Amino acid sequence: MSKLEIPRKAVYRLSLYYRALQRLHANAIETVSSDALAKAAGVKPTQLRKDLTHVGQLGTRGLGYNVALLTAKMTEVLGTARLQPVILVGVGHLGAALVRYRGFQKEGFEVLAGFDEDAERQRAVDLGLKVYPMSELAPFVRERQVKMAILTVPAKVAQEAANDLVAVGIQAILNFAPTVLQVPDGVVVNNVDLAIELENLSYFIR
Amino acid sequence: MSKLEIPRKAVYRLSLYYRALQRLHANAIETVSSDALAKAAGVKPTQLRKDLTHVGQLGTRGLGYNVALLTAKMTEVLGTARLQPVILVGVGHLGAALVRYRGFQKEGFEVLAGFDEDAERQRAVDLGLKVYPMSELAPFVRERQVKMAILTVPAKVAQEAANDLVAVGIQAILNFAPTVLQVPDGVVVNNVDLAIELENLSYFIR
Repeated sequence: MSKLEIPRKAVYRLSLYYRALQRLHANAIETVSSDALAKAAGVKPTQLRKDLTHVGQLGTRGLGYNVALLTAKMTEVLGTARLQPVILVGVGHLGAALVRYRGFQKEGFEVLAGFDEDAERQRAVDLGLKVYPMSELAPFVRERQVKMAILTVPAKVAQEAANDLVAVGIQAILNFAPTVLQVPDGVVVNNVDLAIELENLSYFIR
Repeated sequence: MSKLEIPRKAVYRLSLYYRALQRLHANAIETVSSDALAKAAGVKPTQLRKDLTHVGQLGTRGLGYNVALLTAKMTEVLGTARLQPVILVGVGHLGAALVRYRGFQKEGFEVLAGFDEDAERQRAVDLGLKVYPMSELAPFVRERQVKMAILTVPAKVAQEAANDLVAVGIQAILNFAPTVLQVPDGVVVNNVDLAIELENLSYFIR
């Protein structure tokens, strides 16, 4: 099965199912119906059943899904079994905050290093992360075979930084800068704009 | 025009246009074509023109949009003109990181206070934020008329915390816990799961 056959939004939902399965497993639950798993993941049962065809049909009519088997299959499909190396580009307030958070590490992503225009800048607390100047980006990425970057630079330099990342072979960017990045085919960008999320909520409560 | 008439995804895109307009304004650009504004926001021109009908038709054929006028109209529609009070529930690693980031403040959201089961817990650095025990939640929210909360508690207590928030009158929750919250109609939840965003990217680079 080619990874390109699974639609992007379905991959998101697979991540949701994966977490729901992990919670079931932690609670020693061995089988789960598609209705119950759908509810735990916050999607419609028909959607779940359709999405799970992408990972192979593993449910048994009347019995539901075996939690351990489906979890193992999802690990394989999502590629979360091994530690994924990632670099942080832009070690300002947000970048430093994300490093301190340590949630990425817990989920299997290893933040190898930070890169910043001003690598020597005094940072509020010790990050426990080596910060290199941007000139070190190319040799580092090549040597460590990094394919993924978290981009936390200011919006006005985000495109330039993204160009640098693409040039050295980065294939996936998690972009926190509130701007739209233009990247060539074959490079994937996911955007997280925290202020836009809040702005969207504020619209609904007036 | 009722706010309920604008679809949720269109509201997101209005936020994107709003930021693009702010950048144009900062660069002293007075008018912009729908094609150029669409490109700056990363959407198709047809999509932009459709979305902008929600804020009233302000473009002039052949001249495009007046940047200042459209910005003012968007401010009005999105409700970003005044400072929006928000509370942070769960002041652990991620919550503290978000407070230190200060990006919310810059965008017009004032984080009034933090709430935590263990309000006295020693935190790594001074947050510049008063942290109260959860028992103070109800009087605080009522007195300060807070309607929005950022939820950064662990997944296993997120639903319980969300119930508390709904009970005291919170209408909008930005949820960082990797779980699906069940809330009554009239309460809006936006989810940000940073690990899922990375997981999604890692799928595409294998």
